[in-house]
Amino acid sequence: MASFPRSEVPNTYSAIRNQKWSSAEKAIARKAFDRALHQYLDAIIRQVKKMAGRIEEPSDLWELERYLTERRKEIDRQYDYRYSVLLNVFADLIQKGRLREQDLQGLSEEKLRHVHHLAQAGRPSEL
Amino acid sequence: MASFPRSEVPNTYSAIRNQKWSSAEKAIARKAFDRALHQYLDAIIRQVKKMAGRIEEPSDLWELERYLTERRKEIDRQYDYRYSVLLNVFADLIQKGRLREQDLQGLSEEKLRHVHHLAQAGRPSEL
Repeated sequence: MASFPRSEVPNTYSAIRNQKWSSAEKAIARKAFDRALHQYLDAIIRQVKKMAGRIEEPSDLWELERYLTERRKEIDRQYDYRYSVLLNVFADLIQKGRLREQDLQGLSEEKLRHVHHLAQAGRPSEL
Repeated sequence: MASFPRSEVPNTYSAIRNQKWSSAEKAIARKAFDRALHQYLDAIIRQVKKMAGRIEEPSDLWELERYLTERRKEIDRQYDYRYSVLLNVFADLIQKGRLREQDLQGLSEEKLRHVHHLAQAGRPSEL
Protein backbone atom coordinates (compact mmCIF):
# COMPACT_ATOMS: atom_id res chain seq x y z
CA MET A 1 0.00 0.00 0.00
CA ALA A 2 1.08 3.57 -0.58
CA SER A 3 2.32 5.44 2.47
CA PHE A 4 0.44 8.73 2.03
CA PRO A 5 -1.08 10.19 5.16
CA ARG A 6 -4.74 9.34 4.89
CA SER A 7 -5.87 12.93 4.36
CA GLU A 8 -3.65 13.37 1.28
CA VAL A 9 -4.87 10.38 -0.72
CA PRO A 10 -8.16 11.87 -1.97
CA ASN A 11 -6.29 14.98 -3.07
CA THR A 12 -3.84 12.91 -5.09
CA TYR A 13 -6.70 10.95 -6.63
CA SER A 14 -8.60 14.04 -7.68
CA ALA A 15 -5.48 15.86 -8.83
CA ILE A 16 -4.79 12.97 -11.20
CA ARG A 17 -8.38 12.52 -12.31
CA ASN A 18 -8.99 16.20 -12.91
CA GLN A 19 -5.99 16.96 -15.07
CA LYS A 20 -6.85 18.97 -18.16
CA TRP A 21 -5.39 17.63 -21.38
CA SER A 22 -4.46 19.98 -24.23
CA SER A 23 -4.76 18.79 -27.83
CA ALA A 24 -0.98 18.58 -28.07
CA GLU A 25 -0.84 16.46 -24.90
CA LYS A 26 -3.60 14.19 -26.16
CA ALA A 27 -1.62 13.57 -29.34
CA ILE A 28 1.52 12.71 -27.36
CA ALA A 29 -0.45 10.45 -25.01
CA ARG A 30 -2.20 8.65 -27.83
CA LYS A 31 1.04 8.05 -29.69
CA ALA A 32 2.82 6.71 -26.58
CA PHE A 33 -0.17 4.53 -25.66
CA ASP A 34 -0.56 3.07 -29.15
CA ARG A 35 3.13 2.39 -29.51
CA ALA A 36 3.28 0.58 -26.16
CA LEU A 37 0.21 -1.47 -27.04
CA HIS A 38 1.47 -2.41 -30.49
CA GLN A 39 4.88 -3.36 -29.17
CA TYR A 40 3.24 -5.58 -26.56
CA LEU A 41 0.98 -7.19 -29.15
CA ASP A 42 3.97 -7.84 -31.40
CA ALA A 43 5.74 -9.52 -28.49
CA ILE A 44 2.68 -11.70 -27.89
CA ILE A 45 2.54 -12.67 -31.58
CA ARG A 46 6.20 -13.72 -31.45
CA GLN A 47 5.59 -15.73 -28.28
CA VAL A 48 2.51 -17.46 -29.72
CA LYS A 49 4.39 -18.48 -32.85
CA LYS A 50 7.16 -19.88 -30.67
CA MET A 51 4.73 -21.78 -28.43
CA ALA A 52 2.84 -23.15 -31.45
CA GLY A 53 6.06 -24.33 -33.04
CA ARG A 54 6.80 -26.35 -29.89
CA ILE A 55 3.39 -28.02 -29.52
CA GLU A 56 3.74 -31.78 -29.25
CA GLU A 57 1.11 -32.85 -26.73
CA PRO A 58 -2.58 -31.95 -26.35
CA SER A 59 -1.70 -30.26 -23.04
CA ASP A 60 0.46 -27.81 -25.02
CA LEU A 61 -2.70 -26.74 -26.89
CA TRP A 62 -4.53 -25.81 -23.71
CA GLU A 63 -1.46 -24.07 -22.33
CA LEU A 64 -1.46 -21.90 -25.46
CA GLU A 65 -5.19 -21.23 -25.01
CA ARG A 66 -4.61 -20.16 -21.39
CA TYR A 67 -1.72 -17.90 -22.42
CA LEU A 68 -3.90 -16.17 -25.03
CA THR A 69 -6.86 -15.75 -22.66
CA GLU A 70 -4.64 -14.28 -19.95
CA ARG A 71 -3.01 -11.83 -22.39
CA ARG A 72 -6.40 -10.73 -23.76
CA LYS A 73 -7.79 -10.10 -20.28
CA GLU A 74 -4.60 -8.33 -19.21
CA ILE A 75 -4.80 -6.02 -22.25
CA ASP A 76 -8.50 -5.31 -21.66
CA ARG A 77 -7.74 -4.40 -18.06
CA GLN A 78 -4.46 -2.57 -18.47
CA TYR A 79 -4.65 -0.60 -21.70
CA ASP A 80 -7.44 1.74 -20.65
CA TYR A 81 -7.38 4.98 -22.61
CA ARG A 82 -9.52 7.20 -20.40
CA TYR A 83 -7.90 10.48 -19.41
CA SER A 84 -9.10 10.03 -15.83
CA VAL A 85 -6.87 6.96 -15.41
CA LEU A 86 -4.26 7.47 -18.12
CA LEU A 87 -1.49 8.69 -15.82
CA ASN A 88 -1.89 5.53 -13.75
CA VAL A 89 -1.84 3.46 -16.93
CA PHE A 90 1.38 5.14 -18.06
CA ALA A 91 2.98 4.62 -14.66
CA ASP A 92 2.01 0.96 -14.77
CA LEU A 93 3.50 0.53 -18.26
CA ILE A 94 6.71 2.25 -17.19
CA GLN A 95 6.97 -0.09 -14.24
CA LYS A 96 6.56 -3.07 -16.55
CA GLY A 97 9.20 -1.75 -18.94
CA ARG A 98 6.69 -1.23 -21.75
CA LEU A 99 7.03 2.56 -21.84
CA ARG A 100 9.80 5.04 -21.00
CA GLU A 101 9.26 8.34 -19.23
CA GLN A 102 10.87 10.11 -22.19
CA ASP A 103 8.06 8.80 -24.45
CA LEU A 104 5.81 11.20 -22.53
CA GLN A 105 7.91 14.32 -23.04
CA GLY A 106 5.62 17.20 -23.94
CA LEU A 107 3.07 16.46 -21.22
CA SER A 108 2.82 19.11 -18.52
CA GLU A 109 5.36 19.07 -15.71
CA GLU A 110 2.60 18.23 -13.26
CA LYS A 111 1.50 15.18 -15.26
CA LEU A 112 5.07 13.96 -15.64
CA ARG A 113 5.58 14.39 -11.90
CA HIS A 114 2.46 12.33 -11.15
CA VAL A 115 3.53 9.58 -13.54
CA HIS A 116 7.03 9.49 -12.10
CA HIS A 117 5.70 9.39 -8.55
CA LEU A 118 3.16 6.66 -9.34
CA ALA A 119 5.72 4.58 -11.21
CA GLN A 120 8.02 4.75 -8.19
CA ALA A 121 5.28 4.08 -5.70
CA GLY A 122 5.12 0.34 -6.07
CA ARG A 123 1.86 -0.82 -7.55
CA PRO A 124 0.06 2.19 -8.99
CA SER A 125 -2.84 0.14 -10.36
CA GLU A 126 -3.82 -0.66 -6.77
CA LEU A 127 -3.71 2.92 -5.52
CA MET B 1 -35.70 -34.86 -34.73
CA ALA B 2 -35.83 -38.62 -35.04
CA SER B 3 -39.00 -40.07 -36.51
CA PHE B 4 -39.66 -42.90 -34.07
CA PRO B 5 -43.27 -43.40 -33.04
CA ARG B 6 -43.42 -41.86 -29.60
CA SER B 7 -43.95 -45.11 -27.75
CA GLU B 8 -40.77 -46.64 -29.15
CA VAL B 9 -38.38 -43.94 -28.07
CA PRO B 10 -38.06 -44.84 -24.38
CA ASN B 11 -37.43 -48.45 -25.35
CA THR B 12 -34.65 -47.41 -27.69
CA TYR B 13 -33.15 -45.19 -25.01
CA SER B 14 -33.13 -47.89 -22.38
CA ALA B 15 -31.99 -50.55 -24.82
CA ILE B 16 -28.94 -48.42 -25.57
CA ARG B 17 -28.30 -47.42 -21.97
CA ASN B 18 -28.67 -50.88 -20.57
CA GLN B 19 -26.33 -52.71 -22.90
CA LYS B 20 -23.94 -55.04 -21.13
CA TRP B 21 -20.32 -54.72 -22.13
CA SER B 22 -17.98 -57.72 -22.03
CA SER B 23 -14.29 -57.24 -21.28
CA ALA B 24 -13.45 -57.91 -24.92
CA GLU B 25 -15.98 -55.29 -26.04
CA LYS B 26 -14.65 -52.75 -23.56
CA ALA B 27 -11.15 -53.23 -24.96
CA ILE B 28 -12.41 -52.71 -28.53
CA ALA B 29 -14.43 -49.67 -27.52
CA ARG B 30 -11.56 -48.10 -25.62
CA LYS B 31 -9.16 -48.60 -28.50
CA ALA B 32 -11.58 -47.11 -31.05
CA PHE B 33 -12.40 -44.19 -28.76
CA ASP B 34 -8.77 -43.39 -27.98
CA ARG B 35 -7.73 -43.62 -31.61
CA ALA B 36 -10.51 -41.27 -32.72
CA LEU B 37 -9.64 -38.79 -29.98
CA HIS B 38 -5.92 -38.86 -30.72
CA GLN B 39 -6.49 -38.44 -34.43
CA TYR B 40 -8.71 -35.46 -33.75
CA LEU B 41 -6.18 -33.91 -31.38
CA ASP B 42 -3.43 -34.40 -33.97
CA ALA B 43 -5.59 -32.63 -36.55
CA ILE B 44 -6.12 -29.74 -34.11
CA ILE B 45 -2.38 -29.50 -33.46
CA ARG B 46 -1.71 -29.29 -37.20
CA GLN B 47 -4.40 -26.64 -37.61
CA VAL B 48 -3.06 -24.55 -34.69
CA LYS B 49 0.47 -24.61 -36.11
CA LYS B 50 -0.93 -23.48 -39.46
CA MET B 51 -3.01 -20.67 -37.91
CA ALA B 52 -0.07 -19.51 -35.77
CA GLY B 53 2.20 -19.43 -38.80
CA ARG B 54 -0.25 -17.07 -40.49
CA ILE B 55 -0.74 -14.63 -37.58
CA GLU B 56 -0.11 -11.06 -38.70
CA GLU B 57 -2.68 -8.96 -36.85
CA PRO B 58 -3.78 -8.93 -33.21
CA SER B 59 -7.23 -10.11 -34.34
CA ASP B 60 -5.56 -13.31 -35.58
CA LEU B 61 -4.46 -13.97 -31.98
CA TRP B 62 -7.99 -13.84 -30.65
CA GLU B 63 -9.27 -15.94 -33.54
CA LEU B 64 -6.76 -18.60 -32.52
CA GLU B 65 -7.88 -18.30 -28.90
CA ARG B 66 -11.53 -18.79 -29.94
CA TYR B 67 -10.61 -21.78 -32.10
CA LEU B 68 -8.81 -23.44 -29.17
CA THR B 69 -11.62 -22.72 -26.70
CA GLU B 70 -14.24 -24.13 -29.07
CA ARG B 71 -12.20 -27.28 -29.70
CA ARG B 72 -11.63 -27.82 -25.97
CA LYS B 73 -15.33 -27.46 -25.20
CA GLU B 74 -16.29 -29.66 -28.13
CA ILE B 75 -13.93 -32.39 -26.94
CA ASP B 76 -15.21 -32.15 -23.34
CA ARG B 77 -18.77 -32.50 -24.59
CA GLN B 78 -18.31 -35.05 -27.34
CA TYR B 79 -15.69 -37.52 -26.15
CA ASP B 80 -17.65 -38.91 -23.25
CA TYR B 81 -16.52 -42.40 -22.31
CA ARG B 82 -19.46 -43.62 -20.26
CA TYR B 83 -20.92 -46.92 -21.40
CA SER B 84 -24.45 -45.52 -21.02
CA VAL B 85 -23.82 -43.02 -23.83
CA LEU B 86 -20.95 -44.63 -25.72
CA LEU B 87 -23.02 -45.96 -28.60
CA ASN B 88 -24.34 -42.44 -29.21
CA VAL B 89 -20.79 -41.09 -29.03
CA PHE B 90 -19.62 -43.64 -31.60
CA ALA B 91 -22.55 -42.84 -33.90
CA ASP B 92 -21.73 -39.15 -33.63
CA LEU B 93 -18.06 -39.75 -34.46
CA ILE B 94 -19.01 -41.90 -37.45
CA GLN B 95 -21.27 -39.13 -38.71
CA LYS B 96 -18.41 -36.64 -38.43
CA GLY B 97 -16.04 -38.99 -40.25
CA ARG B 98 -13.82 -39.47 -37.20
CA LEU B 99 -14.56 -43.17 -36.80
CA ARG B 100 -15.54 -45.99 -39.17
CA GLU B 101 -18.09 -48.68 -38.37
CA GLN B 102 -15.41 -51.30 -39.03
CA ASP B 103 -13.35 -49.87 -36.13
CA LEU B 104 -16.06 -51.28 -33.87
CA GLN B 105 -15.98 -54.84 -35.23
CA GLY B 106 -16.12 -57.23 -32.32
CA LEU B 107 -18.95 -55.45 -30.50
CA SER B 108 -22.20 -57.40 -30.31
CA GLU B 109 -24.52 -57.39 -33.32
CA GLU B 110 -27.06 -55.45 -31.28
CA LYS B 111 -24.60 -52.70 -30.41
CA LEU B 112 -23.42 -52.41 -33.99
CA ARG B 113 -27.05 -52.20 -35.13
CA HIS B 114 -27.76 -49.39 -32.64
CA VAL B 115 -24.67 -47.47 -33.72
CA HIS B 116 -25.51 -47.91 -37.40
CA HIS B 117 -29.08 -46.82 -36.82
CA LEU B 118 -28.09 -43.77 -34.73
CA ALA B 119 -25.43 -42.71 -37.21
CA GLN B 120 -28.04 -42.80 -39.99
CA ALA B 121 -30.69 -41.07 -37.92
CA GLY B 122 -29.46 -37.54 -38.36
CA ARG B 123 -28.23 -35.98 -35.18
CA PRO B 124 -27.79 -38.69 -32.58
CA SER B 125 -26.40 -36.33 -29.96
CA GLU B 126 -29.83 -34.71 -29.78
CA LEU B 127 -31.79 -37.92 -29.40
